[in-house]
Amino acid sequence: MATMDTDRSETEVAIMEATYRALCEHGYADLTIQKIADEFEKSKSLLYYHYDSKDALLVEFLEFALERFAADFAVGGTDDPEGRLRDLIDRLVPESIDDADDEQFQVAVFELRSNAPFDDAYHEQFTKADAIIRTRIAELVEAGTEDGVFRDVDPDRTASMLVAVISGAMVERVTTDDTVEAIRGGIEDYVENHLLVEGSR
Amino acid sequence: MATMDTDRSETEVAIMEATYRALCEHGYADLTIQKIADEFEKSKSLLYYHYDSKDALLVEFLEFALERFAADFAVGGTDDPEGRLRDLIDRLVPESIDDADDEQFQVAVFELRSNAPFDDAYHEQFTKADAIIRTRIAELVEAGTEDGVFRDVDPDRTASMLVAVISGAMVERVTTDDTVEAIRGGIEDYVENHLLVEGSR
Repeated sequence: MATMDTDRSETEVAIMEATYRALCEHGYADLTIQKIADEFEKSKSLLYYHYDSKDALLVEFLEFALERFAADFAVGGTDDPEGRLRDLIDRLVPESIDDADDEQFQVAVFELRSNAPFDDAYHEQFTKADAIIRTRIAELVEAGTEDGVFRDVDPDRTASMLVAVISGAMVERVTTDDTVEAIRGGIEDYVENHLLVEGSR
Repeated sequence: MATMDTDRSETEVAIMEATYRALCEHGYADLTIQKIADEFEKSKSLLYYHYDSKDALLVEFLEFALERFAADFAVGGTDDPEGRLRDLIDRLVPESIDDADDEQFQVAVFELRSNAPFDDAYHEQFTKADAIIRTRIAELVEAGTEDGVFRDVDPDRTASMLVAVISGAMVERVTTDDTVEAIRGGIEDYVENHLLVEGSR
């Protein structure tokens, strides 16, 4: 993950990283403050001093994860928009998740997301996360149209469609027996037929 | 909802319908067997006789809902494939959900779905539900290609792409502040540019 300037102290960042490891190892449902403390190398009392409940800690963690996510996805140039868009899609809809920790983390994010309908803080974080991806995709679509690589499509509608496919692919992956292979194929066709000037049409 | 032949007794169907009403009213997290019993007009002991836990009842409910869903979506002719496909998408990605009960139910389904990564019975039901929609869309895409209305696209990839968008739109609707308006626009462009022979291209 990229680093970025934040207001967090070194201790707070260490707590967030311990939370990440605990989520990867135990998932969301089985997570306790104690399990996060077990991943934390400094004094446990420091952790309890900063966060008095699992919920407070997890909302803070979501915000932290969002900053890292933004550092990874919100920035970057717009040369080679097709290549950059393909790369973004590949990272967000990977063919397979080989690492057990990564898989557990993706399930944990999905569980955290299932709190969003009832919890304003979660709701806000996921709204922001999706907006980061949507804005970045729209920017690449606009750049591609300007470069004459992409057709003159609606950037917001295209970006919203792709964000929905990315969310949907994650849901399919963690809640059904299906692989995302056919979805990846469908996205490839979409890029060819909807976006690329030199499409297969 | 359409009716169909099942092995369920009248009592079992009445219990399922009470579960549906209770989910609409209370959502999943706050659901108890008692609240389902409150929606059930027959003897409460009948309900406890049939189901001894909320979990057993909800897995049964998912199966019941899936049968209704299949009756609604798995069948139907293939004349006017474009109209039928647009109608299916409109029903699964409605512009807005005006009825508070329908909204509560959609949130409840999302919560039930968030159990799927850990519960084989839920996993199985959601795999089946997605397969029903995917198969139906692929059938309509094939019919449209045969009729010369749709281009000769890959039916499975197209269907998988649309199922992912449908799941993703549901996630966006219940977990973020965004409406599904831009996603619906994106789907419209997809139908025009990817599917229709007489597209906007």
